[in-house]
Amino acid sequence: MLKITLKDESVIEVEEGKLIIEVAKSLSSSLAKKCAVAEFNGKLVDLKMPLTEDGKLDLVTFEDERAFEVINHSCAHLMAQAMNRLYPGTKFGVGPAIEEGFYYDFAIPEAITNEDLPKIEKEMQKIVKENLPIVHYMLSKADAKAKFASDKYKLELIDAIDDDMVGIYEQGEYTDVCRGPHVMSTGLIKNFKLLSVAGAYWRGDSKNDVLTRVYGTCWPTPEALAHHLEVLEDRKQRDHRKLGKDMQIFMFDDLVGRGLPMWLPNGFIVRRLLSDYIMDKEYDLGYQHVMTPSLGNVELYKTSGHWAHYKDDMFPAMELDDEAYVLRPMNCPHHMVMFRSKPHSYRDLPVRIAEIANDFRFEASGALTGIERTRAFSQNDSHIFCRPDQIAQEFKAVTKLILDVYKDFGFEKYRFRLSLRDKENTEKYFGNDELWEKSENELRNVLKELGVDYYEALGEAAFYGPKLDVQVRSAIGHDVTLSTIQLDYQLPERFELTYIDQNNQKVRPVVIHRAILGSMDRFIAFLLEETKGVLPVWLAPVQAMVIPVNNQFHLDYANEIVEMLRKKKIRVKMDDRDEKLGYKIREAQMKKIPYQLVIGDNEVKDGTITYRQYGKKEQVTVSKEEFLNMMVAFNEERK
Amino acid sequence: MLKITLKDESVIEVEEGKLIIEVAKSLSSSLAKKCAVAEFNGKLVDLKMPLTEDGKLDLVTFEDERAFEVINHSCAHLMAQAMNRLYPGTKFGVGPAIEEGFYYDFAIPEAITNEDLPKIEKEMQKIVKENLPIVHYMLSKADAKAKFASDKYKLELIDAIDDDMVGIYEQGEYTDVCRGPHVMSTGLIKNFKLLSVAGAYWRGDSKNDVLTRVYGTCWPTPEALAHHLEVLEDRKQRDHRKLGKDMQIFMFDDLVGRGLPMWLPNGFIVRRLLSDYIMDKEYDLGYQHVMTPSLGNVELYKTSGHWAHYKDDMFPAMELDDEAYVLRPMNCPHHMVMFRSKPHSYRDLPVRIAEIANDFRFEASGALTGIERTRAFSQNDSHIFCRPDQIAQEFKAVTKLILDVYKDFGFEKYRFRLSLRDKENTEKYFGNDELWEKSENELRNVLKELGVDYYEALGEAAFYGPKLDVQVRSAIGHDVTLSTIQLDYQLPERFELTYIDQNNQKVRPVVIHRAILGSMDRFIAFLLEETKGVLPVWLAPVQAMVIPVNNQFHLDYANEIVEMLRKKKIRVKMDDRDEKLGYKIREAQMKKIPYQLVIGDNEVKDGTITYRQYGKKEQVTVSKEEFLNMMVAFNEERK
Repeated sequence: MLKITLKDESVIEVEEGKLIIEVAKSLSSSLAKKCAVAEFNGKLVDLKMPLTEDGKLDLVTFEDERAFEVINHSCAHLMAQAMNRLYPGTKFGVGPAIEEGFYYDFAIPEAITNEDLPKIEKEMQKIVKENLPIVHYMLSKADAKAKFASDKYKLELIDAIDDDMVGIYEQGEYTDVCRGPHVMSTGLIKNFKLLSVAGAYWRGDSKNDVLTRVYGTCWPTPEALAHHLEVLEDRKQRDHRKLGKDMQIFMFDDLVGRGLPMWLPNGFIVRRLLSDYIMDKEYDLGYQHVMTPSLGNVELYKTSGHWAHYKDDMFPAMELDDEAYVLRPMNCPHHMVMFRSKPHSYRDLPVRIAEIANDFRFEASGALTGIERTRAFSQNDSHIFCRPDQIAQEFKAVTKLILDVYKDFGFEKYRFRLSLRDKENTEKYFGNDELWEKSENELRNVLKELGVDYYEALGEAAFYGPKLDVQVRSAIGHDVTLSTIQLDYQLPERFELTYIDQNNQKVRPVVIHRAILGSMDRFIAFLLEETKGVLPVWLAPVQAMVIPVNNQFHLDYANEIVEMLRKKKIRVKMDDRDEKLGYKIREAQMKKIPYQLVIGDNEVKDGTITYRQYGKKEQVTVSKEEFLNMMVAFNEERK
Repeated sequence: MLKITLKDESVIEVEEGKLIIEVAKSLSSSLAKKCAVAEFNGKLVDLKMPLTEDGKLDLVTFEDERAFEVINHSCAHLMAQAMNRLYPGTKFGVGPAIEEGFYYDFAIPEAITNEDLPKIEKEMQKIVKENLPIVHYMLSKADAKAKFASDKYKLELIDAIDDDMVGIYEQGEYTDVCRGPHVMSTGLIKNFKLLSVAGAYWRGDSKNDVLTRVYGTCWPTPEALAHHLEVLEDRKQRDHRKLGKDMQIFMFDDLVGRGLPMWLPNGFIVRRLLSDYIMDKEYDLGYQHVMTPSLGNVELYKTSGHWAHYKDDMFPAMELDDEAYVLRPMNCPHHMVMFRSKPHSYRDLPVRIAEIANDFRFEASGALTGIERTRAFSQNDSHIFCRPDQIAQEFKAVTKLILDVYKDFGFEKYRFRLSLRDKENTEKYFGNDELWEKSENELRNVLKELGVDYYEALGEAAFYGPKLDVQVRSAIGHDVTLSTIQLDYQLPERFELTYIDQNNQKVRPVVIHRAILGSMDRFIAFLLEETKGVLPVWLAPVQAMVIPVNNQFHLDYANEIVEMLRKKKIRVKMDDRDEKLGYKIREAQMKKIPYQLVIGDNEVKDGTITYRQYGKKEQVTVSKEEFLNMMVAFNEERK
């Protein structure tokens, strides 16, 4: 008899070899029905596993978080079985559970698209109804290879297993190499949805075959599935790639090149306003803006060290007779050269060189994501050259600027991360202990002083210094860094930067790299997702749409209003098309234009404007001047 | 006896073999003294040439325009003789007269600099005093080669002469291979000045030796020389390369790369204001601004035709596994792709896509000239996509915009050139006769209608259409094109652009390329040269310098003024250094800051501002508000 400790710490005696599901039934038959899997001695296992030793047993219900991975994994097998029935000859790659569902990679004899998903779901439902038992057994490697002889991917997977025996799962005619665990039968897999079809390289290597990856998701209850699908739909609506297309913000074209965004007129308006916004703020804070070229001699990047450490992320060099140029991945080296071009006294520091700088990185095609991750982007960058005694003050000013900007945009969900060095591995970092101790303490103190909520990440500092960055999660679930502040003791050394100190000695300044909006492109992606495309009025590409009720009677006055607004640089359009009023209003709403101005008899008679604000139902009537002043204020105050 | 016809048509009889100088003396000994050379039967010849046939004789005095080339050529020989004395072993390249003087290329055993020029001039003066006769004779090629056996450059020149006999000029110990003509003796060469030392490739080929080129200039009178030196000094003061450095507008650094300008804070302010200026004007005229990437897939340039015809002027391609990218030399292809990305109706045209676009061309090192000619620049570019019936209206609007902008900047010295096709060579041009006839006539009519002063350049049209451009001459004597308007029938064809016409048919639009400020970089170069760096107030990087007379008593009020001006975005600086007032005022003048505000007792007492405008002597006292309003008006009205 085995001694089995239950979750409530009670101990029961169980005969050796008894299946867990039998134990569960003996405890409570209703509980047994709710179980998906069990945890035995800290490890998730099949309910059909026989108990062979003493241990702790915890029954895991379908609604338990721990079951999520299992039911999604079982659902992946279910889908694979359906694929095998629908597309005979299909070969099978891997089919894991992932954070919010599962996928399976197939080599299918024919091409499938999202259109085919309902058909596959239907076949899966059939197999659910068949309620096939899911059976687990072990085979020797040789036997397993004989069994999967016709599937080269499975053979490769079996070869990679570091054990003599291989786990097999079987349900009806379908067999898979798998560690498990799984639910007990196909009838227990419910509440699933297939989501999309994509291409994926076998084992993630671009030199291998492209397989067809089908994504899906499976939940314990119909309600949980419905809620998740709503979340996905909201994300889709928020996805900046969709919004960017609907709102005509940017476009891509393969003839120009993958990952190279082309900013359409609406997008350029947003970019220009954002650039002006941040440059004006920076100017007031003593930053000096410059413009440096998008490329540099390769020697420049040898001096900076990028050539040795960052070359693979750069576009290839342009080789000439006796020199080579390369598109810059970042603009630090240009700013170093600029600082170096004239002598500096300790009295002149800090020097804050800033630039909305065009940078270029050769991201892998698979990593490209709309304007969130591109091969050409613009950094809202600055390098602050300061004395060591100015680090705290400058770090504080930059942190305040970040908080100020986030407040302007109403961002709330972000996290400050202070990346410090790993003290156990000091040889991994530039400079000496004292320097690091001092600067890390200074940064920590500033954050405390400002009352900023932050966490520390030990060992995450850059080689050249500690850093603070702000991370947000994008609508499509990517963690992205918006702002960053990085101390750098190394570049001043590499470029031999100096200033003359109080004692008339040449000494090295410290460089603070910082980006507030980060990449302009990524920032706009994030802003679109945060606002679902309802940009603040001052940033809206079209701020007001004037709609005359009847062109015959109201067009002149409508024109007068357009003229009045344009003179004050309000971005206004007129919709005088021969369409129904309701249709025009709906269209303006769909385009997320903040103000729709409906001009009819009353407005003409009283010299007023009746407007409806985006997302609101009520109409408001005001004098022309009132409306104009409101709009001018939005633009001046950037609200 | 020969029959010689003089300039006044009178005919005299002269014995055969008589020297021209003797004929001149016989006519008037005072005239003979003024003669530098003669024109005999339409050809310039030595005064010492014996007459051997009938003909027309015209005596050319030193002050005659035709003598300018001769005296400069003789001065080049004079300099070469001096070099030979000062630097024995020097070898001699070519030494021609040029538009405003002369140069001579030497291979000197030691390096010389501008510092050595006075010494060389002194040696030249000695040779002038020696008054050596300049003697001409002919040698067989073989004899000439024997004579110049030790000078490899002269040997190469002799070999290249397409004649058996070679002309030789000799003065004292110095001999040169030369066609002449020259003045009669070294004593006649006066009023010269050596200007600069530069490097030059032998025969202009970068594969050859680098020789030392010394430039000089020689004039008929001391007054003419003095005047020319003044012109040169003025040009030097106007040279944007000097101004750009003095005013901290831009810099270059070899580590970044030749021809790649880095815009310093002052320069960026000017660029940003100019960009805003032209974009605001364009926006009001219905242009839509976009931003497209600085590079493109090579396929894009194959489609546009640039790859076949313009590749040599581009940076080399960046080759990747299965594709190649290239820095763009112009942004037309990007705009074509953008237009093509959505359908257009005849009602939507014209579509005016505009961009301050970063472009890159691989100019030869020797052609690089400050920011006038660079390898990285920004075009104030636009492509207007219109129907054929809209060409005249659009062409007119663009021409008016050009005139409007030039008026804003007060430009007066420019020339409109209408480039038409060569009707004899119609196969050189894209499209048919009717198209060209019609569009050329339309452009001509618009120019007449606008009363624009223009000239026609037959055969200067582009392959793809007629064009109008505006040319100016830079301070350093380069002809540069500022604005351009070009019709293009070809790119719409290559990119298969279409719109839907009234009959619901897909037809091709016409493209009008246009640039108003042209390259932003070149425009700023020209603007600096035109204004000698005294930019209009709204463009000045620093608009006002506040100078307290005594920090102890006047600093608080001075700070108050700075604060007041900054709030209204006036670019103001404070000079509170511990220096003499006069010194600070002079320095502000030297930096060409438009307004110097001197703050003393009276200003503090009365709450006023006393200012001195750049270039003016009088001081003006006004109320704080008056000054503020004046400055705000400058910025708002861009004056």
